[in-house]
Amino acid sequence: MPAGESLFPADQAAFTSGERLMHDMVRPAEEAAQLLEQYCDRLPEMLNWLSQFGKDPEGGVTRLLYSVSWLEAQEALRQWMEQEGLEADFDQTGNLAGRLRGTDPSLPAVAAGSHIDTVVNGGRYDGALGVAAAALALSYLSKVYGPPKRTLIALSLCEEEGSRFPVTYWGSGSIAGLRSWEADGHHADMDGIALLDAAKRCGFGPDSSYNAPFLELQAYIELHIEQGFVLEKTGLQAGIVSAIVGQYRYEIQLQGEANHAGTTPMQWRKDAMAAAGRMIALTREAALREGDPLVATVGSLHASPGLSNVVAGSVVFTVDIRHPDDAVLQRFADELLQRFAHMADTEGVRFAAVERLRAAAVPMHDRIMRELERICRKRGLASRVMPSGAGHDAQMLSAICPTGMIFVPSRHGISHNPGEYTEPEALKNGFKILADVLYQFGYGSVDL
Amino acid sequence: MPAGESLFPADQAAFTSGERLMHDMVRPAEEAAQLLEQYCDRLPEMLNWLSQFGKDPEGGVTRLLYSVSWLEAQEALRQWMEQEGLEADFDQTGNLAGRLRGTDPSLPAVAAGSHIDTVVNGGRYDGALGVAAAALALSYLSKVYGPPKRTLIALSLCEEEGSRFPVTYWGSGSIAGLRSWEADGHHADMDGIALLDAAKRCGFGPDSSYNAPFLELQAYIELHIEQGFVLEKTGLQAGIVSAIVGQYRYEIQLQGEANHAGTTPMQWRKDAMAAAGRMIALTREAALREGDPLVATVGSLHASPGLSNVVAGSVVFTVDIRHPDDAVLQRFADELLQRFAHMADTEGVRFAAVERLRAAAVPMHDRIMRELERICRKRGLASRVMPSGAGHDAQMLSAICPTGMIFVPSRHGISHNPGEYTEPEALKNGFKILADVLYQFGYGSVDL
Ligand SMILES: [Zn+2]
Ligand SMILES: [Zn+2]
Repeated sequence: MPAGESLFPADQAAFTSGERLMHDMVRPAEEAAQLLEQYCDRLPEMLNWLSQFGKDPEGGVTRLLYSVSWLEAQEALRQWMEQEGLEADFDQTGNLAGRLRGTDPSLPAVAAGSHIDTVVNGGRYDGALGVAAAALALSYLSKVYGPPKRTLIALSLCEEEGSRFPVTYWGSGSIAGLRSWEADGHHADMDGIALLDAAKRCGFGPDSSYNAPFLELQAYIELHIEQGFVLEKTGLQAGIVSAIVGQYRYEIQLQGEANHAGTTPMQWRKDAMAAAGRMIALTREAALREGDPLVATVGSLHASPGLSNVVAGSVVFTVDIRHPDDAVLQRFADELLQRFAHMADTEGVRFAAVERLRAAAVPMHDRIMRELERICRKRGLASRVMPSGAGHDAQMLSAICPTGMIFVPSRHGISHNPGEYTEPEALKNGFKILADVLYQFGYGSVDL
Repeated sequence: MPAGESLFPADQAAFTSGERLMHDMVRPAEEAAQLLEQYCDRLPEMLNWLSQFGKDPEGGVTRLLYSVSWLEAQEALRQWMEQEGLEADFDQTGNLAGRLRGTDPSLPAVAAGSHIDTVVNGGRYDGALGVAAAALALSYLSKVYGPPKRTLIALSLCEEEGSRFPVTYWGSGSIAGLRSWEADGHHADMDGIALLDAAKRCGFGPDSSYNAPFLELQAYIELHIEQGFVLEKTGLQAGIVSAIVGQYRYEIQLQGEANHAGTTPMQWRKDAMAAAGRMIALTREAALREGDPLVATVGSLHASPGLSNVVAGSVVFTVDIRHPDDAVLQRFADELLQRFAHMADTEGVRFAAVERLRAAAVPMHDRIMRELERICRKRGLASRVMPSGAGHDAQMLSAICPTGMIFVPSRHGISHNPGEYTEPEALKNGFKILADVLYQFGYGSVDL
């Protein structure tokens, strides 16, 4: 917007029940405030309702892409959106968009949302929170303020986790043009069913009557649980994501010599496990020395022959390194691998590092971050700017529009597990921040 | 024998083809020497013949206890022994003893031998060498010297490896009274067949007509491949075993906290893998510092959940520690576990060390070692006294009589593998040492 213009529309009164709205929704009209609290209460209920789709007998939720429970959840959401006055439709991939039509068709839309799929026996918050909160926020805004200037969209993205097919971010990636039927449709699930065929069985696919998954967006905002325990440990109510970390993953292959554990003197061994042990210890040591927010993890290791009485002839382990700054990530990874190679050398073990994943860091949009910070301040919510160590749909959509993310605390950082939990109060905080920022986009005039 | 008496019988001439034997067999009668070379040549042939029983299509040998190939091998050996003039019979467990009857029934017998069973896809030397060499040696001695004073026995022990049933040293342990049908007969193989039932199917077992596995022995001598590469690397022809090492095996259990590899800052992790890495590195470091002959090995490790993007919540790994001196072994193990516990503490990980194996070191008999050294010197064979890092039947039989072991080089130290190989020349060296020491027991008068 031109410098000097207000972030807020001149005439908000038209959308309210008669009383003029206060700036920033810090003190909305009494009725709006009451309605906001009602919507806040509806959020945990809606998450509970959503968790019934794909409910596991043991208490978790399993909604795999293009499964019956997934389809039922998306269809139920579509009906819910229509009941709330949104124009709801699917795209070819099964992404669901609920539109609150704006009055100025020349302005590109702003979307909020997250994903509806889960991991196997996952929790009820990961993904679902961002979907439910976005849908409720649009319903709330329309009830209080009527139609926005620019179209607002609640997105229930079809797939993020990659739990059924080896394709992560299928929904958001399709919208961003980073995934396609041509490139990804052939990927098969554990039963050998291709993604494309599974989509067709649900009525989706490139030959269906649905639109191709393209949205022209002004911005995308995602509310998500932290999936970590930084907010919990630091006693904060919200995280404003600065970047989704870059992530390098290597498979480290060590080839030594399998020898008898009793008859082979120590100095003549080529012990792949001993070499691995030094590298694993170094990984943690170096990451601690580098300091936050760098994280480096060896989570998986396989030794061969893997017998207690045989010196390991070969060991394969993974190293996962993440940092929100690609330059730091690159330097750290290079140095670590160099020191690994040197250690392998001194242990007489052959060394190879195979790159298995290389995802650049995805910074969130600065203006959106600042807006989210401002909203938190105004709402009296203790927040911090922090990187997201996990991947999210926002990192795909950031390829086509400015994006922002809001984190709310995850109890004990537990995620992808039935034990996933976020306090109702924390859910409400997240909802208010999301509603506030969508208000600014839809009814104010945030300039990006 | 009373002090001052000669090691050698006064009248050896009776056993020779007329010429008086030289002391120590250093220069036996010309015919005896020719015959010895002939028997030396028969040894590789006999090993080749034995390797046909249970020959694997891929080149190795698989003779599991009480299998058809195992039974055929033992029965063929029994017939071979009888053809060579030995009194051959089985005991209840399937141990085969070929006796060269001594002239003085008041003297306890001396046995030599090893085991006839193999690991799955094992080699043709482990065990078989000691069996074949003992049988050939008795045949040779009887041909050259006639009946000995004391009975000499070639033992083809039924089982050492524990490859089919979870019972190691079943054959020698039964003789030594350390294994029994009562205690071990119920152990089942992978198909659920009990050891006792498998024995019965072969005609063995406590109700069979065979004798109980008890032998009153004056001594037991075992010729075996080294199963390591110390002799090869040091260019020596024979090893004289000082002790079978004591062996402690622990399962180390580390319980940390499984967390998201992206969202969990380094300083808040309880990373079981990082703790394990430090312990594995320490194990090698401490063993190197302690020095030969101590060896310590981490050969097996399992991490849970074992995913590249999850901090390992728990890790279980094994530590195998061996040393010929129990006091050193105990001190080293205690110190290592103490330092492990401390490391676990600093990593915030719970620690448990479960003892899985605790075998005391078994020293070989000093007088037999000295006799073997003397024989090597006289034969001009470069030898060294060394511990055996691997277990052998001798460690069971040492519970009932003085024992000695002779090692010959294993190419590249390879064992329990079709690649197991020992040069014919090395086999012959071992055979001569064994024949010499059996001569001393049978026809001389080695005092133990
Ligand atoms: Zn998610
Ligand atoms: Zn053996």
